[in-house]
Amino acid sequence: MKKIAVMGYGTVGQGVVEVVLKNKDLISERIGEEIQIKYVLDLREFPGDPAEHMIVHDFDTILNDEEIEVVVETIGGTNAAYQFVKSCLLAGKSVATSNKALVAEYGAELLQLAKDKNVNFLFEASVGGGIPIIRPLNTSLTGDHIDEISGILNGTTNYMMTKMFYEGADYNEVLKKAQDKGFAELNPEADVEGHDACRKIAILSSVITNKTVDFNDIYCEGITGITTEDMKYAKEMEMTIKLLAISKNDETGLEAMVAPFLIDENHPLYNVNGVFNSVFVHGNALGDGMFYGSGAGKLPTASAVVGDVVDALRNKGKTIMPVWDVNKLALKKHEDTKRKFFLRIKGDGKAKEADVLAMFPGGKIQSLSGANDEFGVITDVMSEGMCAEKIAALGTDFIHMIRVEESL
Amino acid sequence: MKKIAVMGYGTVGQGVVEVVLKNKDLISERIGEEIQIKYVLDLREFPGDPAEHMIVHDFDTILNDEEIEVVVETIGGTNAAYQFVKSCLLAGKSVATSNKALVAEYGAELLQLAKDKNVNFLFEASVGGGIPIIRPLNTSLTGDHIDEISGILNGTTNYMMTKMFYEGADYNEVLKKAQDKGFAELNPEADVEGHDACRKIAILSSVITNKTVDFNDIYCEGITGITTEDMKYAKEMEMTIKLLAISKNDETGLEAMVAPFLIDENHPLYNVNGVFNSVFVHGNALGDGMFYGSGAGKLPTASAVVGDVVDALRNKGKTIMPVWDVNKLALKKHEDTKRKFFLRIKGDGKAKEADVLAMFPGGKIQSLSGANDEFGVITDVMSEGMCAEKIAALGTDFIHMIRVEESL
Repeated sequence: MKKIAVMGYGTVGQGVVEVVLKNKDLISERIGEEIQIKYVLDLREFPGDPAEHMIVHDFDTILNDEEIEVVVETIGGTNAAYQFVKSCLLAGKSVATSNKALVAEYGAELLQLAKDKNVNFLFEASVGGGIPIIRPLNTSLTGDHIDEISGILNGTTNYMMTKMFYEGADYNEVLKKAQDKGFAELNPEADVEGHDACRKIAILSSVITNKTVDFNDIYCEGITGITTEDMKYAKEMEMTIKLLAISKNDETGLEAMVAPFLIDENHPLYNVNGVFNSVFVHGNALGDGMFYGSGAGKLPTASAVVGDVVDALRNKGKTIMPVWDVNKLALKKHEDTKRKFFLRIKGDGKAKEADVLAMFPGGKIQSLSGANDEFGVITDVMSEGMCAEKIAALGTDFIHMIRVEESL
Repeated sequence: MKKIAVMGYGTVGQGVVEVVLKNKDLISERIGEEIQIKYVLDLREFPGDPAEHMIVHDFDTILNDEEIEVVVETIGGTNAAYQFVKSCLLAGKSVATSNKALVAEYGAELLQLAKDKNVNFLFEASVGGGIPIIRPLNTSLTGDHIDEISGILNGTTNYMMTKMFYEGADYNEVLKKAQDKGFAELNPEADVEGHDACRKIAILSSVITNKTVDFNDIYCEGITGITTEDMKYAKEMEMTIKLLAISKNDETGLEAMVAPFLIDENHPLYNVNGVFNSVFVHGNALGDGMFYGSGAGKLPTASAVVGDVVDALRNKGKTIMPVWDVNKLALKKHEDTKRKFFLRIKGDGKAKEADVLAMFPGGKIQSLSGANDEFGVITDVMSEGMCAEKIAALGTDFIHMIRVEESL
């Protein structure tokens, strides 16, 4: 009998208990021994719940029980979660977590601790919900140099962008709808400002480099500035706007960012709609690969956590995740990274065309049907720093800028 | 130093050597020791080739060298490949193969042999080229009951279907183009008749059930009957036609088949175009997931093989693949499986509407612009057996039938 404990009986914790109870026979067969959830740690009581008799209120019950081999952390945050996870690893118990904040902040330390204690610290569920991505990167794509990993890593904002694109709804309207449907929180800042996606791309960047990538170093811009006019331009250009998290890794270093991007119909992420997430990977042997699925939600996230539990139980006595260098990886300077930009400018496009093309050589003017008082330009490739300078030079004529991610 | 051998220096074998040489440092770091290709078995000589000095002509050189821990099999077929792989496993060497024919025919036996000898028999590259799918099923989705796995598993036919759909080209025209581009072989039977996809879905069905699924038991229909008119109907119905390999696994048993299917724009596989492959997975916790990438080609396939080599070296002394029950799994009878069908019928749709709807209650008539002498009907859900009976009853009025796979 393999005994595990779950810490935190919120949505994901409840999902983990549900999946383990529902698929117990299958899971036990895959482990080679019966699995049992011995404890569920929560401050509350859950009378009538399937976990009613597993509930304990004292972390030490779990910590001091030598029968517990794997502990699931679904508390969230970096306070109690960090203390408890650290204690579990120190006590020789493996940990599976869905907590991206914990991994983004303490990943290197906890991976090293797990290695020192010959146990596992696994976090498949911290990125992309149920989508298997961290384990495939560590165990399948091991013959490849991964030079790009990018994706739609936040379901809330992707739902909002999809609604704005297909239904012409405005930002506040779709935010309200997302909140009504439970896709967005009452305080949506972590999602709409891109912080959630930023922690996830930091984790993925660490996974492909085995170095600590600090999310604080990653340029992060949310979707709060995206308007119905932006979406109209996108439509006229046969493009759409997505909040992308991008990490590119070549000889000159690693470049990572989170921002809304214009992408065209040929881009592999164009058709990822609604609350779905998708991770695009490019390897020097693999070529293009993409992983797609439910990026959040009780059961998909629980699916990933339980997959980690099974892996930890199957690999008892053997650390399967590489450690990350605790020294922070210095990212490329944001202002030096290069791409095309789409700028909206006040005035008559026809009259100003020559001036604007002189400012943006190789640029392409884009009008907006029904609007005479503004136009757009898609620039040639230039650095972020150069673009910022040109925006400053435009002064009050400048309306809005959205980056362009070209198809491969 | 970890030493490996490659058997068969054709396209994939050359890809494996190329990837190992190109990414040697990375791969060595991931294994924790330097990797070296000691032998490449081929009957030919390769003067001037990077493998020139690794070439050996005698299999025994590899078999009897105790330094060789992992052997790559990229010979193909089930003759020499089978004998050599068996001998390697018996000698305590792990094997990584890209050979779907070998796995489909001898998977259960070779997995058992690997387990008995405490080594590994790995075959990620046998399905979906570079797409990681077998390992994620065995190591990530271990908390899920996988109730469906289906996909576009053959790049040649998907390229042809894509061309026929978007360019209105006819079957022979696109086949010739595919052959000119090297996407189809001069004898294209294995691809266009669905045999290749059939072996792959048999392997995936075995992976999700851990039972032997015999490809000979799987209903298999190729794309040779698909015409430009079929594609025109598809367009008018806002659908497309794809060669799908489908495996559905519920309490009543496993149903597997390969055939062209009509799918609509909401189906996750609708946008998988050209030579790309995609595998769709549904788990009872995961929900929908999809894996997408290059389904064939030298380097993508090599990427999967090298991933297996790394996994075998990292897991020395431990068999990581579950064995498959050698007793064949009895599939659901083809004639009992149920779905909607699209039938093309001779005559005037308006005049015959009442008769046809009486024959197919709940059906939907579909006209074809510009054609007065034929029409189509999408039936309600019925069994394959029932549909065959109705087709027989239609006699010479019947033109063609294509199955419909509904969106989820």
